[in-house]
Amino acid sequence: MATGTAPSPRVVVVGGGFAGLACAKELGARGVDVTVIDRRNHNLFQPLLYQVATAALSPADIAEPLRKTLGRYEHVSVILAEVRGVDTTAKSVATDVGSVDYDHLVIATGSEYNYFGREDWRRVAPGLKSLEQARTLRQRLLLALEWAETTASSEERRALLTQVIIGGGPTGVEMAGAVAELGATVSRDFKNIRPEEFRVLLIEAGPRLLAAFPEGLSHYAKQQLEKLGVEVLLNTRVKDLTQDTVTFGDQILPVGSVTWGAGVKASSASEWLPVEPDRSGRIPVEATLQVKGQANVFALGDVALFLDEKGAPLPALAQVAKQQGQHLGKALGRHIKAGATLPPFTFRNRGNTAVIGRHAAVFDFGSWQLKGRLAWILWAIVHVYLLVSFEKRLLVSIQWLWRYVTLNRGARIIAEHARSGEDASPVTR
Amino acid sequence: MATGTAPSPRVVVVGGGFAGLACAKELGARGVDVTVIDRRNHNLFQPLLYQVATAALSPADIAEPLRKTLGRYEHVSVILAEVRGVDTTAKSVATDVGSVDYDHLVIATGSEYNYFGREDWRRVAPGLKSLEQARTLRQRLLLALEWAETTASSEERRALLTQVIIGGGPTGVEMAGAVAELGATVSRDFKNIRPEEFRVLLIEAGPRLLAAFPEGLSHYAKQQLEKLGVEVLLNTRVKDLTQDTVTFGDQILPVGSVTWGAGVKASSASEWLPVEPDRSGRIPVEATLQVKGQANVFALGDVALFLDEKGAPLPALAQVAKQQGQHLGKALGRHIKAGATLPPFTFRNRGNTAVIGRHAAVFDFGSWQLKGRLAWILWAIVHVYLLVSFEKRLLVSIQWLWRYVTLNRGARIIAEHARSGEDASPVTR
Repeated sequence: MATGTAPSPRVVVVGGGFAGLACAKELGARGVDVTVIDRRNHNLFQPLLYQVATAALSPADIAEPLRKTLGRYEHVSVILAEVRGVDTTAKSVATDVGSVDYDHLVIATGSEYNYFGREDWRRVAPGLKSLEQARTLRQRLLLALEWAETTASSEERRALLTQVIIGGGPTGVEMAGAVAELGATVSRDFKNIRPEEFRVLLIEAGPRLLAAFPEGLSHYAKQQLEKLGVEVLLNTRVKDLTQDTVTFGDQILPVGSVTWGAGVKASSASEWLPVEPDRSGRIPVEATLQVKGQANVFALGDVALFLDEKGAPLPALAQVAKQQGQHLGKALGRHIKAGATLPPFTFRNRGNTAVIGRHAAVFDFGSWQLKGRLAWILWAIVHVYLLVSFEKRLLVSIQWLWRYVTLNRGARIIAEHARSGEDASPVTR
Repeated sequence: MATGTAPSPRVVVVGGGFAGLACAKELGARGVDVTVIDRRNHNLFQPLLYQVATAALSPADIAEPLRKTLGRYEHVSVILAEVRGVDTTAKSVATDVGSVDYDHLVIATGSEYNYFGREDWRRVAPGLKSLEQARTLRQRLLLALEWAETTASSEERRALLTQVIIGGGPTGVEMAGAVAELGATVSRDFKNIRPEEFRVLLIEAGPRLLAAFPEGLSHYAKQQLEKLGVEVLLNTRVKDLTQDTVTFGDQILPVGSVTWGAGVKASSASEWLPVEPDRSGRIPVEATLQVKGQANVFALGDVALFLDEKGAPLPALAQVAKQQGQHLGKALGRHIKAGATLPPFTFRNRGNTAVIGRHAAVFDFGSWQLKGRLAWILWAIVHVYLLVSFEKRLLVSIQWLWRYVTLNRGARIIAEHARSGEDASPVTR
């Protein structure tokens, strides 16, 4: 790869999620020379990933190729590569396809699910961070239904029709609601399955769901999920997991699928830098988003530890990531083009939300809250707006909303190899 | 699985493609008790599969869950299973999830690509029969571009930018045109790739493309492909294949991807029956679509050898399959419900078509032909109509047409595991 120093300062952005992409766009719009490195070729609208897992959306509906988004900026290029490390003295990023020099480095590598040391659980209980995980969960859910339809064993059938979601945060709540609704629609298509046979369990180790929300909304979410038929188990710790069983308390429950949503940790990017991460692996940053002790390195979004004016870390939310990316892109653009100093970042809370099925949602705006059907309508409007601005595809969004409201699952495709166990002949270089 | 004899005669349909599905729908509409067995959970609109492979469509756009299509018929059930064999004496179909009794059996298992004894080629050069194959091809094409963008070796780059399609039938012609057009659009998104570096070769063993069409249309197709930049090699036999090389004549060509479209053979369903298949594995049927010598067994579509009034076998086309399915569904429904005798099937040629890029197509209506831009417009209208009736999703179809005409590839998503070589943790029962 060509690594000659560019005539104008070059910014390398590692990670094309909400933070990295927002930053690259702002820099690109200001004519700054930018290289975005990501191991995926697409930006993902993660907040709706649970809808891919429950067959309401297709992967391409919520994923946008980075090249497409960034293609319009003349000085922005994209490299599909895995970062191996950073040499902050030589100002160079090492990747599996060569090294890339930088003048300013932006780390926006996001977060991953935390399996608390049980890495073997990662395979049996996928989280909802990537399309691949969502696809795997979709396959397991759809296949569990298919097998339940034909099995002669009532025991196997009961197991296949039991879906477990671990973790009562927004992902767990949204997934539990969506799985329960999927279950409610099966009787039309599966002649041997009655909707009441379909069981959904949401298991949370703490004393309430949605711990980051005010307590009133937690109770409401539990109530609403129970209305949808979800069994909510609080103060319950999972002791062991396999692909077909979940062990908690003193029971080993045979299940059809397990979804993991029990807490995230920062990606391991802190290992590349001479910094001390916090317990969750986050990289401490100044108010300017500069990595502590590193003038030319910045960290954004889930991977950054940013303390607000009260000294509390900002949460791992899409809106934080996006605002930080936009802020840094503008600030760094002005700095590079006009020598401006870097202003501090301030987070503006746009409201934290979680949706519970197709009739209820909760919103926390800090000073006030909203819940119920009105919150759901607001949630739908906000997400259609976000999807449209994300993809510039109005038709997809309308169609999505229509299918979502009518419960018509458009993406219930089971890949053939999933069933036979034959792998999909992965491509290696 | 419950296998007790149903009170009314039960029809078992093996295969949910165009033929099997059309038959099941007609029977379902007449209140006949039907069980459809397929190893896929979806019916696939195969004529547009090459557009999934070239990132213009998503898998779910051209696949419809069988349960969704057939859910409306009270007496039709669907089983996701692999058929192991048929006992024509006991009138029972053995599957991997148990056996199913029948009164009438309909075999509609379709065809697969013929690798002429080189089964090792199946993995390195996927055909276009399943979503999985289309996805694999899409990954290879998109990754070849990604790697070409970053490689420092001009040799590797040349190889990665060379795509080979083997077989000059409609699938090969359509794929070659679509790949060439994908290549023409890369320069906006890939800063280091010039469109003229992208090479597409279409290799055909015979003396002309589209051998099933009149010669004038073959020449026209070649001309049009060459205008799109495709190098058409006729009378050229492939001697060897790996994932990265194609050997023909006396050269070993390093390539980025290989697509296989060189001839089909019937699926192996004839092995289940006491019949003598023809050289392509097809099951000989009477004019009534009854398998020769078997009163209660029928074969439809690509797997059936049906001779027309001139003694020529009907070709393996979607329209033949669909017409046969509809015919048999109606006939068998009347036979079961009212004791009517089975009338003979007659094929009505609706026109055989192949599309060459976004500006040209050919149509063969038997007594007259059409080619050029008008043919392309007709092709687009017919396919929007077919897609709409296939999916009942008008918006998807409009959006598809729009994206297709504007060359805006919406589905350029590379699965993450494809790159790392890690497999997608297949689900096994």
